[in-house]
Amino acid sequence: MTPEYLDTTTTIVAPTTAPGGAVMVIRLSGSRAIEIADTLFRGRKRLCDAEGYTLHYGHIIDSQERIVDDVVVALFRAPHSYTGDDTVEITTHGSEYITTEIVRLCIERGATMATAGEFTRRAFLAGKMDLSRAEAVADIIAADSRWSHNVASTQMRGAYSAKFRELRDELLHLCSLLELELDFSEEDVEFADRSTLRSLLDKVENQITSLTSSFTLGNALKNGVTVAIVGKPNVGKSTLLNALVEDDRAMVSDIAGTTRDSIEATTVIDGIRYRFIDTAGIHTTDDKLEQMGIERTHRMIANASIILHLATADDPTFDSVAYDDKQHYIRVVNKIDYATDITDIDSDALLISARMGTGLDALRQRLRDIVDTSKLDAGSVVVTNMRHYAALSQALAALSDARRAMNVNMSGDLLSEDLRRILHHIGEITGEITSDDILHTIFSRFCIGK
Amino acid sequence: MTPEYLDTTTTIVAPTTAPGGAVMVIRLSGSRAIEIADTLFRGRKRLCDAEGYTLHYGHIIDSQERIVDDVVVALFRAPHSYTGDDTVEITTHGSEYITTEIVRLCIERGATMATAGEFTRRAFLAGKMDLSRAEAVADIIAADSRWSHNVASTQMRGAYSAKFRELRDELLHLCSLLELELDFSEEDVEFADRSTLRSLLDKVENQITSLTSSFTLGNALKNGVTVAIVGKPNVGKSTLLNALVEDDRAMVSDIAGTTRDSIEATTVIDGIRYRFIDTAGIHTTDDKLEQMGIERTHRMIANASIILHLATADDPTFDSVAYDDKQHYIRVVNKIDYATDITDIDSDALLISARMGTGLDALRQRLRDIVDTSKLDAGSVVVTNMRHYAALSQALAALSDARRAMNVNMSGDLLSEDLRRILHHIGEITGEITSDDILHTIFSRFCIGK
Repeated sequence: MTPEYLDTTTTIVAPTTAPGGAVMVIRLSGSRAIEIADTLFRGRKRLCDAEGYTLHYGHIIDSQERIVDDVVVALFRAPHSYTGDDTVEITTHGSEYITTEIVRLCIERGATMATAGEFTRRAFLAGKMDLSRAEAVADIIAADSRWSHNVASTQMRGAYSAKFRELRDELLHLCSLLELELDFSEEDVEFADRSTLRSLLDKVENQITSLTSSFTLGNALKNGVTVAIVGKPNVGKSTLLNALVEDDRAMVSDIAGTTRDSIEATTVIDGIRYRFIDTAGIHTTDDKLEQMGIERTHRMIANASIILHLATADDPTFDSVAYDDKQHYIRVVNKIDYATDITDIDSDALLISARMGTGLDALRQRLRDIVDTSKLDAGSVVVTNMRHYAALSQALAALSDARRAMNVNMSGDLLSEDLRRILHHIGEITGEITSDDILHTIFSRFCIGK
Repeated sequence: MTPEYLDTTTTIVAPTTAPGGAVMVIRLSGSRAIEIADTLFRGRKRLCDAEGYTLHYGHIIDSQERIVDDVVVALFRAPHSYTGDDTVEITTHGSEYITTEIVRLCIERGATMATAGEFTRRAFLAGKMDLSRAEAVADIIAADSRWSHNVASTQMRGAYSAKFRELRDELLHLCSLLELELDFSEEDVEFADRSTLRSLLDKVENQITSLTSSFTLGNALKNGVTVAIVGKPNVGKSTLLNALVEDDRAMVSDIAGTTRDSIEATTVIDGIRYRFIDTAGIHTTDDKLEQMGIERTHRMIANASIILHLATADDPTFDSVAYDDKQHYIRVVNKIDYATDITDIDSDALLISARMGTGLDALRQRLRDIVDTSKLDAGSVVVTNMRHYAALSQALAALSDARRAMNVNMSGDLLSEDLRRILHHIGEITGEITSDDILHTIFSRFCIGK
């Protein structure tokens, strides 16, 4: 039996905008969308007689012919709609009462309430977009800086999928050669020249490796580049954090759902989001809950991309700080407005006054230079999605199995099996190979109405 | 000089939906709306070549020709739009980043950011709706129960304005008779027969009085009918409040911005909102802030429409409670599930068990019966707006001046002056007579984007 969430025969309805604005939009999509809307709508003409891509002013009426609201109806005819099905979008006054009433009326006439992501899932099932493009729709909604938006936007428009199609075609070519060889195995021919095969495998591996390594950048663009501010007490860690964030407070408060406990703050510098951790928040405490928070801070510092080591002009010495070679390390000398003599100071260190705002632009530039977005300018593909990263890692594992099989002159059928596993994992990304469970997980990340 | 907020020559832009949904809509309206949108939009055809009431799929691009988002553009041509001007509505993915970027691009191309209510103000200034209808737009957005929605909806669709036009026409007829009399005053004719005039004045007064008295109902529909739950300690006041509200918790949590401190809760019964005050919240305290809250509770009880007096089955006596003749009084005996003998109980009292839910339907019915909405079914006009109520009260004062002037045989010109004052106050409601200040106050109540 088809699971309920893969059923596309029903007509679904949901508000597609958030409550609280001047207007709200209700989306009704499916084979009966226009018919159901026609039972509710009174305008100059019937919607069933109207063409797609047209707007209609009129009223929505209830069963007692009472007017619920003045509305504008947008009509989309299959397949030229978001979902690929007939779709009606009703723009009402921004009242939850009205929206609820209209959704209720649609359900009364035979529609069912759309679940989270169901409109996009239908677009996927109708072949309007592949899975990675559908996932990018959720990412683009969540994007809150220029680069995270750029990455999601590239993915949504299919450059990302094209990259995987390319990989897939190469692998399929390899497989078909190997399988042809199997068909003629009695004759002991070798269609797939092993050295050609090896170099093709190298090429595929390079491409997958470059994609997995782009995940670090991708993850930073999506979730923010973590910067730990460390240093002795009273060197001005919190002041620096405030100074860096203050400048862009509007952006910070614009970000919905940002977790900002006392020791964390985020800001956007030239389109990149940075997540600052103020280690001043680390102290000894008996409180279990606080201890868990501090534990988390320690883990974040260990995983931070950038360590910002702070000292002051009157004591410009830097204790040793543990960091690994994947982390960037910046020395900063604060309170230079109080300094009488700066000759002793490490010439590599940046001189700032967090209080006066001196030197902060240079510091921002340094932070910005660390994140290399030049790849993005060339429009190349960046992996930001954990699920894709996992699938690529599994593809790499299958690839090294294939290489091992080749080294021991394993037969073509076993080799072909390994190549099929690589294909399988790449297919998971675009949704050519997928399970109901994966689909369910992906689309439940969406909001209702998308 | 025209104040900035009365200027209608600029092209204005604002998001018209709230952030946080699957899609957002940006509205651009004014003489340059289509031209500005065309500089940003790339679709199958140029918007300036398209007809009104059409939809267009395409991209929004920035100055570097980078794609900001895939959008659907709705095109409305003057005068067939909400504001009466050319209007473009851009539906984007529900991202604040994208919305901000598109609004910014529109402003870069010459649009200005719309202020609160500016789209509706333009509709008013363009003569698309009168002032009371424009105000109803804000009311309909805030409406959260069937009847409050009905009242706002009737007002928005003009039945309300029609009532005032009717009143106005009668008054204008009276004035013209009086003024004709003045023109011929040398000849000592009396076109306006004083007894006809008196009966016309009676009629107008009746109509205005019936409107002002509808304000009590109107206010209750708009803000909720206040019900104070009083009684000795431990009779189950809080349990009753919870039981009454629980049944409809969905509606309660649906209401955005409802103030629900510990002693207040609201629920909707058959389309009417009730605001319950649990007097258990009243206690002695030294805390200034709490004292102010309790003070407020006392005032709300004094002003409550309904007093719900609670006793229990094992002590079914009711102490005297002060209430005035405008307040409705209901006796309720709780905890009847514990009762062994109910013969002693006042036969007027409703028997309930708040804990078991027994008798609550009968109580709800009693509460519902108190609010007489029969007038509304007949589609009559109800005043819900404080500003209108104030204007009507001033009209009544002018009317009694007119009556006094007639009683002392004041001359036609002075009488006419009083009638003009009545007309003035009625004109204030529909906006025929208005000041910049009033307009400013009214439209700043709106949200941005409306």
